[in-house]
Amino acid sequence: MKLAVDAMGGDHAPKEIVLGVKRALDEFDDIEVLLYGNETQIKEWITPGDRLTIVHTDEVIEGTDEPVRAVKRKKNASMVLMAQAVKDGEADACISAGNTGALMTAGLFIVGRIEGIERPALAPTLPTLDGKGFLMLDLGANVDAKPEHLVQYAIMGSVYAEKVRGIDRPRVGLLNIGSEDKKGNELTKKTFQLIKETSVNFVGNIESRDLLNGPADVVVTDGFTGNMVLKTIEGTALSVFSLLKETLTSSFKNKIAAGMIKNDLKGLKNMLDYSEYGGAGLFGLKAPVIKAHGSSNETAFYNAMRQAREMVRHQVAQTIKEAVIGSEENHG
Amino acid sequence: MKLAVDAMGGDHAPKEIVLGVKRALDEFDDIEVLLYGNETQIKEWITPGDRLTIVHTDEVIEGTDEPVRAVKRKKNASMVLMAQAVKDGEADACISAGNTGALMTAGLFIVGRIEGIERPALAPTLPTLDGKGFLMLDLGANVDAKPEHLVQYAIMGSVYAEKVRGIDRPRVGLLNIGSEDKKGNELTKKTFQLIKETSVNFVGNIESRDLLNGPADVVVTDGFTGNMVLKTIEGTALSVFSLLKETLTSSFKNKIAAGMIKNDLKGLKNMLDYSEYGGAGLFGLKAPVIKAHGSSNETAFYNAMRQAREMVRHQVAQTIKEAVIGSEENHG
Repeated sequence: MKLAVDAMGGDHAPKEIVLGVKRALDEFDDIEVLLYGNETQIKEWITPGDRLTIVHTDEVIEGTDEPVRAVKRKKNASMVLMAQAVKDGEADACISAGNTGALMTAGLFIVGRIEGIERPALAPTLPTLDGKGFLMLDLGANVDAKPEHLVQYAIMGSVYAEKVRGIDRPRVGLLNIGSEDKKGNELTKKTFQLIKETSVNFVGNIESRDLLNGPADVVVTDGFTGNMVLKTIEGTALSVFSLLKETLTSSFKNKIAAGMIKNDLKGLKNMLDYSEYGGAGLFGLKAPVIKAHGSSNETAFYNAMRQAREMVRHQVAQTIKEAVIGSEENHG
Repeated sequence: MKLAVDAMGGDHAPKEIVLGVKRALDEFDDIEVLLYGNETQIKEWITPGDRLTIVHTDEVIEGTDEPVRAVKRKKNASMVLMAQAVKDGEADACISAGNTGALMTAGLFIVGRIEGIERPALAPTLPTLDGKGFLMLDLGANVDAKPEHLVQYAIMGSVYAEKVRGIDRPRVGLLNIGSEDKKGNELTKKTFQLIKETSVNFVGNIESRDLLNGPADVVVTDGFTGNMVLKTIEGTALSVFSLLKETLTSSFKNKIAAGMIKNDLKGLKNMLDYSEYGGAGLFGLKAPVIKAHGSSNETAFYNAMRQAREMVRHQVAQTIKEAVIGSEENHG
């Protein structure tokens, strides 16, 4: 299979991106890579070969660019060329650590939606205390979601968890402000009824306070709420760790204690580090489009590459298409 | 002033409630208390006197009761009688640690809305890292809010922060998924424009990841999002502390270190403990209705009593009424 990669996106591009690509090429002999970006810079870290083609471009979409305008005007940006390669059938999937909004725009307008999917969803795997993690969608692709969109997220998430993560009959939950069936706002109440009618293994409402305990394999929510909850988890965890750091350096005695537990505390912080869990998939597009974390290092980008490969291998886009058509036929 | 109190609501009722009332009576000689509940049980902890009347009732609304039905059918429940006292002008404010939904229902249908306020809001003070805290509303009274409701929350929150917390020109922020002016979903985008037209000191969009740093004195959001974010903060903080506990007991060396920092860590946990910050006000009602935390101990309930007293002293309900009428006259 062929993977198209934006070498210029992310805080540590191109170095860490290229090193991640190199590692993926070493590990997986069934992949070929098309790498888009500044050829001179890229060649500092990798040499083109049988399975690696560098496509030079000087244009780059910056993190601060307005997404829709950037994708429309910067026709030769590394991210745009990468998406175009998928559209033209030259690549089977694409991966970028660049501007999230621009990648969603490129995915939607260049790669294109699966017929029948109304709105694509941004779907990362989030950490849980037991280390297994869960898929949550949508995390911000669609901030004014309708119940019908959320039902499609349930189906898409279920397909992914089964095919890529190998979970049999994945548990699908709906993020809500109470666990009882009748709880919520208009959106979640309607969505609850509609998901119940599908064939996914629906476990009902999930409360945000339980998320890190892994109450489901797939958690469905609208993009506004999902984005809000993700940032709340990140912000709270960071705040607690910063309070902890303050406490641990507040006295000589505490500093000694801190020295004794330093390494274990680092492991604890990593446990809640989202970059450890690879990239976020843009679900509902004709081919896998993976958003690697903006701060991706070699390992994080390698994980995003691996995820793209798994999605191609297991024909996730094709299976989502069939599942959505199937669910529509069931309901007329 | 007279405060009506539900002695039977909360996990530690009536003991901790009554002890909180006792402390409030000792501290503030300008209050009289009407205490509703089981007289025999109440008298184990307090003796009626000049400034304390016990009104006996056997009926209680349980935490598991369906709110609307309970308030309608249990006419003699301690919580219902307490609200009725406010309606009848026998008390100036009321306080309960019982069923939140039932208290919101009693507030809305017995105490009643201020004319011109479309939806009341549940407004607790949340902790920040600097210990100052901020007011957030709505936390779940109104889960399908419209932009007009959120504008009224901004006005009500601003009045409270100024009158009760003594903050000059309180900073009012809108909870959103990005800090730029144009970010958000339909609700927040419209609300942003409307709040800008009011006279409140609007500081724009606030991201949930910054909440614990105290970026504003008042944070406005719809009840669904507010409830979701509150539970996410609680859940994440608890999860991090439980991971921390695991780490600190995972080896002999770590246990020794843990012993050295134990007391300081406890202080850290208390810093994020919501019960330290008194009760949540139900804003937009004709008189102050305060929801004390369900797990209230003596101190937490005393704090809720103090808050009710402050709201009566500073005529918060009356000022909200005038501010809302004023803002409506400005806009036609």
